[in-house]
Amino acid sequence: VAIVTLLTDFGEADTYVGQMKGAILVISPSATLVDLTHAVPAQNVRAGAFLLWTAVDVFPPGSIHLAVVDPGVGSARRAIAGKCARGDLFVGPDNGLLAPALDRLGGPTALVEVSNSKFWRPRASKTFHGRDVFGPVAAHLAEGTELDELGPSLSDLQRPFTICPPRATGAAFQGEIIHEDRFGTLITNLPGDLLPGDFALTVKGRRIVGGRQTHFASVAEGALVGLIGSAGLIEIALRNGSAAAALGATIGERVSAEPL
Amino acid sequence: VAIVTLLTDFGEADTYVGQMKGAILVISPSATLVDLTHAVPAQNVRAGAFLLWTAVDVFPPGSIHLAVVDPGVGSARRAIAGKCARGDLFVGPDNGLLAPALDRLGGPTALVEVSNSKFWRPRASKTFHGRDVFGPVAAHLAEGTELDELGPSLSDLQRPFTICPPRATGAAFQGEIIHEDRFGTLITNLPGDLLPGDFALTVKGRRIVGGRQTHFASVAEGALVGLIGSAGLIEIALRNGSAAAALGATIGERVSAEPL
Amino acid sequence: VAIVTLLTDFGEADTYVGQMKGAILVISPSATLVDLTHAVPAQNVRAGAFLLWTAVDVFPPGSIHLAVVDPGVGSARRAIAGKCARGDLFVGPDNGLLAPALDRLGGPTALVEVSNSKFWRPRASKTFHGRDVFGPVAAHLAEGTELDELGPSLSDLQRPFTICPPRATGAAFQGEIIHEDRFGTLITNLPGDLLPGDFALTVKGRRIVGGRQTHFASVAEGALVGLIGSAGLIEIALRNGSAAAALGATIGERVSAEPL
Repeated sequence: VAIVTLLTDFGEADTYVGQMKGAILVISPSATLVDLTHAVPAQNVRAGAFLLWTAVDVFPPGSIHLAVVDPGVGSARRAIAGKCARGDLFVGPDNGLLAPALDRLGGPTALVEVSNSKFWRPRASKTFHGRDVFGPVAAHLAEGTELDELGPSLSDLQRPFTICPPRATGAAFQGEIIHEDRFGTLITNLPGDLLPGDFALTVKGRRIVGGRQTHFASVAEGALVGLIGSAGLIEIALRNGSAAAALGATIGERVSAEPL
Repeated sequence: VAIVTLLTDFGEADTYVGQMKGAILVISPSATLVDLTHAVPAQNVRAGAFLLWTAVDVFPPGSIHLAVVDPGVGSARRAIAGKCARGDLFVGPDNGLLAPALDRLGGPTALVEVSNSKFWRPRASKTFHGRDVFGPVAAHLAEGTELDELGPSLSDLQRPFTICPPRATGAAFQGEIIHEDRFGTLITNLPGDLLPGDFALTVKGRRIVGGRQTHFASVAEGALVGLIGSAGLIEIALRNGSAAAALGATIGERVSAEPL
Repeated sequence: VAIVTLLTDFGEADTYVGQMKGAILVISPSATLVDLTHAVPAQNVRAGAFLLWTAVDVFPPGSIHLAVVDPGVGSARRAIAGKCARGDLFVGPDNGLLAPALDRLGGPTALVEVSNSKFWRPRASKTFHGRDVFGPVAAHLAEGTELDELGPSLSDLQRPFTICPPRATGAAFQGEIIHEDRFGTLITNLPGDLLPGDFALTVKGRRIVGGRQTHFASVAEGALVGLIGSAGLIEIALRNGSAAAALGATIGERVSAEPL
């Protein structure tokens, strides 16, 4: 049984996600569909790329990851599918959404443009390729269609941004906040393995300490703490509260980190 | 394996949807449950009917569509199930919620009142027929129970409104906005096939052009555009933004359309 | 096929729920995953315990209930699993979240601390035991692992609160509002079977009548009504509107109830 994960900016108030699932199940009735999130901010490809990147690693090798944040739908932007070394497959628009997650799993070993309309829904719309192109293509992959049947192969995909840019080695590291989660925890683009022991962060003039063994309850109620979060990145949290609210900080805020 | 789609106004903050799924799975453990949406505005039967109408077509023939927006729960309003020509089944309250979707699939070929409590949950509550009546009935249909076992047959169902009223032929058409989606795109009740070529829309004194080949990225960033949306209706969108916010328009606003 | 229900405070905007599902499916690919809710207010163990309590009864005996509202993640708080008489299994932190639901199904017949890391995800994080400990443990239970393989047995679990405290018998009963649902219906901690006939409620000086046969549509549009809700508790509702808004009342407000 194939697993197909779904990540979009469709929200939950319309039936767009449901329609996309219908278009998958009509082709692959036994696929296991797993929602990653549908609350990517509307048309925010970068936020979608980060969220996809956080989630793909934990799924069984060979899973199919279908992601649609697609402000260019209907235009000349390419629709693509890719495969990585451990067998996971990715389907979505070629706008930067897929590249970080593919790279997290070792980078693509094969890439195609999914231009063969035989694998699309008949009479595809101009505005809803999640239902009419990407969903059906993912379903055909779930049913065993080979990547090279879907369209011509590509040498590379668009990479307009990276999650964790390479950094100069040194005692201190400069990064920024790239995500605020539902708890108000602030996630930076600084990988935890830059700082193998305890560390101090500076954000908005505030100094916050943390370390590899730190967790939310390491500090007093209401105190700020640095920690290595579940994505492997350095995060700033507040015990039983919102670090974002306490700091007045959100995405884009600069963070510096140094070992203690 | 039967597909059961779910559409309600239960929201996601309570466990009502989960309880309804439990009541289905206890009867039909292998049913494939697919959420259409649970964010229908509370007790808004008309909005629920539109959303259901948008989604049923894409599912495999023979799917079971369970919809519950039910302000009259516990009162004398009827609980019904219906079948359409291609085999899809519908279950829900007889308050207008199901009729447009059933009609989209060709209209009912059979209708029953699901009054046989043998197919309900034991000791059905007065306030939660999603869990206690409609869910179990859908589950029994998924397990192969025939429609006529569920209760007496009905000659017709309630039709308090239609999605796209019939229109006089002519050069220009009058319609209205019937849905605003999560992107702020405004969906009208004007079918796209009224206007087979390019067209001009007028809403709140603004003129907006569009056509059958138009997509979101056909216009400059921030510009308004008319298009045929994924439901086959004429829509007003804003590239990378909200048409609703730009126009200050929402559900109920008048729209006129004429060919170019 | 095992059913695993999921209740958390992770929200739907991040991929935390999706990651937890991936961690389950990598171990138990055919488990049926059912979301109860992921909108428990952040770190609110008591609200999570109430919501879990509302939902477990309807699922088939033998279901696995995985619940994570876990402000103490990474600290010394215990991770536990329990079984009740009819075979249902529970997995989560030992902070009061599971006890009311377990007790609703007759109380635990076995309890263990899930400290055997053989059943965890390799290299468990300090901050995300939903993905790294509880999810994998639930998945192993779904695959047939016995409770006593997971770690040492426990004599009891934490019970910091109860949903419906025992009450003195008498003509009138004092309770409070413990939940406000998405419709603005106010749920009290007064079990409906305290008052077998019609009753009068007093909240914020307002007198509201109701009874065992009452439903939302028993009263005029916009009127307040008391009823026995789907969880078996006394509730205050407003026909086609929000009782919470009409009364200016929410969680914690005192309610008294007496027979009519």
